[in-house]
Amino acid sequence: MSDKPKPLGPIPAGYHAIDGELAIGGRPVSALIAEAGETPLFVYSREMIAARMAHLRAALPDRIRVHYAIKANSFRPVLETMASLADGLDIASAGELALVLSAGCDPAKVSFAGPGKRDEELEAAIGAGVTLNLESEGEAERALAIAERIGMTPRLAIRVNPDFDLRGSGMKMGGGARQFGVDADRVAPLAMRIIQAGCEWRGLHIFAGSQALDAEAVIAAQGATLDLADAIAREIGVALPALNLGGGFGIPYFAGDTPLDVGAVGAALADRFAALPEMLAEAELAVELGRYLVGEAGVYLTRIVDRKESRGETFLITDGGLHHQLAASGNFGTVVRRNYPLAIASQFGAAPAQIANVVGCLCTPLDRLADRAALPRADVGDLVAVFCAGAYGASASPSNFLGHGPAAEMLV
Amino acid sequence: MSDKPKPLGPIPAGYHAIDGELAIGGRPVSALIAEAGETPLFVYSREMIAARMAHLRAALPDRIRVHYAIKANSFRPVLETMASLADGLDIASAGELALVLSAGCDPAKVSFAGPGKRDEELEAAIGAGVTLNLESEGEAERALAIAERIGMTPRLAIRVNPDFDLRGSGMKMGGGARQFGVDADRVAPLAMRIIQAGCEWRGLHIFAGSQALDAEAVIAAQGATLDLADAIAREIGVALPALNLGGGFGIPYFAGDTPLDVGAVGAALADRFAALPEMLAEAELAVELGRYLVGEAGVYLTRIVDRKESRGETFLITDGGLHHQLAASGNFGTVVRRNYPLAIASQFGAAPAQIANVVGCLCTPLDRLADRAALPRADVGDLVAVFCAGAYGASASPSNFLGHGPAAEMLV
Repeated sequence: MSDKPKPLGPIPAGYHAIDGELAIGGRPVSALIAEAGETPLFVYSREMIAARMAHLRAALPDRIRVHYAIKANSFRPVLETMASLADGLDIASAGELALVLSAGCDPAKVSFAGPGKRDEELEAAIGAGVTLNLESEGEAERALAIAERIGMTPRLAIRVNPDFDLRGSGMKMGGGARQFGVDADRVAPLAMRIIQAGCEWRGLHIFAGSQALDAEAVIAAQGATLDLADAIAREIGVALPALNLGGGFGIPYFAGDTPLDVGAVGAALADRFAALPEMLAEAELAVELGRYLVGEAGVYLTRIVDRKESRGETFLITDGGLHHQLAASGNFGTVVRRNYPLAIASQFGAAPAQIANVVGCLCTPLDRLADRAALPRADVGDLVAVFCAGAYGASASPSNFLGHGPAAEMLV
Repeated sequence: MSDKPKPLGPIPAGYHAIDGELAIGGRPVSALIAEAGETPLFVYSREMIAARMAHLRAALPDRIRVHYAIKANSFRPVLETMASLADGLDIASAGELALVLSAGCDPAKVSFAGPGKRDEELEAAIGAGVTLNLESEGEAERALAIAERIGMTPRLAIRVNPDFDLRGSGMKMGGGARQFGVDADRVAPLAMRIIQAGCEWRGLHIFAGSQALDAEAVIAAQGATLDLADAIAREIGVALPALNLGGGFGIPYFAGDTPLDVGAVGAALADRFAALPEMLAEAELAVELGRYLVGEAGVYLTRIVDRKESRGETFLITDGGLHHQLAASGNFGTVVRRNYPLAIASQFGAAPAQIANVVGCLCTPLDRLADRAALPRADVGDLVAVFCAGAYGASASPSNFLGHGPAAEMLV
């Protein structure tokens, strides 16, 4: 080995080898690939999803509801699993509405957020009886007119653009000027308009950011969220029926990242819940999570089709790539490319014996899965696992790019 | 208007208004949308593609062949148009092979490059009679074994990883250690192996970079490519049958970008062609272009579904977004987000009257189509046009993200 490798992200807890091979759900990945028939393949673990949910529920106060944001992963078996484990589902389009309805989810447990809802989407959502998280005064007026026209009482909440953000979050969703929600100081008049119009008032949705690993930052944002919700409810003059506190619970992707301390988050929430102001005392309280619930439970498996040397560097070229795992290539929402957690799945746990670049099969230099990684010796036919592939992998990648088509997916 | 707007990219030449509305192919975009039935919609102009090709052919020496890299845009009607206008088609996957064959393209005019070709892809390509641009010694051996097994004489070229890059290019495809091609100093022995094995020797493919706007840089790379091809051919000892000089011809996307001077490129090529070394004298010479041929001929149309104010900024929220136009959102291959060319299509050419952010409908802050743009006053129902959408738009975006599905496409 020459030169220094670049670090890989941390492999999530719970992955082990069977006979030297990565196993998921107790089965070696080669057996899973044989069952699926091909690589590339996303494998999601039902057991790990359930364990994550159990861990979270143990850490958080009983009172809090856990909602699943299906945009993270809407593969049908995963969606059905989450529908059974979570207390609610959050959707972001008419397409996702159709998905949750076809999966048999109870519309009363579904809420629909998103800054650009078309009239057809509003009508479908109101007709189905799901809660709309309104993103603007204009959207509210359109929703009221549609509800009137189709003779339904709409279930309406307001998404708030808070006057704070989630410190250290990967994506800021609040604070400053945003396309999301109604600025906090304009929420109360809109809520009063909705209540006076005879709609079912479903309270507030306050989402300050996502992908935070610092418990203190999450605690501060949740505290500010409760304070803001109380202030708005007092301004409205009606006790809040429900409050979606948003998400923001991150997972470690990169070297140096450490898991979020959900125990600390839960303890702080319990303290707050013990002394809730009157306006929040009876509210349904929920967190909305996607990545945190399913991200670590997914692995993207791809096979090495070529091993080559170029000017002193080794390239392991796989049959997968950024068309399935855009974020792992460093091309989605990141400024500086860093390595995701990645391993040679067919020699899982073996000692590093080379420094290699792991790249995809696309004819573009953007298609890189690992840069100068220290890996066991790997050859054509060996399998590569990219971890943290359970959220925003298959769903957030350009699967048609270069005509390779989507990867297979399975839940085990 | 308060504060300073951020500049928009330059709108490509050839777009005009009819009755104040952007027209493509002589028809106002509202009529095109009515025909397609919906927004978001990609519209590609056959006339502009043909004009671009004619402009290019007039600038380049007659001898040069112009190949189209279908990865830029493989929408069936565009592909058929390019098959009739270009001298060859370049593909990058078995999926793209199936596309060109189903469109009736002559396999003898098709070449297949890509660093991770699977055995099934090699077999399909050899069986169909397309030229393989081999990316490594390992791939060459696999191709030879497959050809032997299926009893075909494969048409083989070698992709070279040159020892130079394309200065100022948006993506470097050569120079240094690369997953693409065989390092220049190892090409000759591989070529001799291929020739001695009785394959049809199809020469070299040398691709130094893409998206360059500086003619001098393209001229320097083409000159270095011809020199390198000559040196390799002399080492092989066989006159070169064909040389794919690669592409690299860029289009302006951002404020301050100026079009590539293809006249200068053509004049320099003509000079070189007038005194080609013996080893290249009879070679088929080609450039391989994608973005340059179709990029400016496409427009992405999306409708404003909400207009809102947030803390002093205006947001125009559209029914489109990064799920169709990832690169325009600044999330694909760019480090610093800059605005693409964009206009209010329903008031095309009207004077700016506001500074607004144009965002997509996705529930993520990444979904931004224009940041603080100076635009005419626009409201719900107005149409937004994002230009330079003919290449790497529909094909290179995560169309399933958040369940909105793909945009419609039409060629006029």
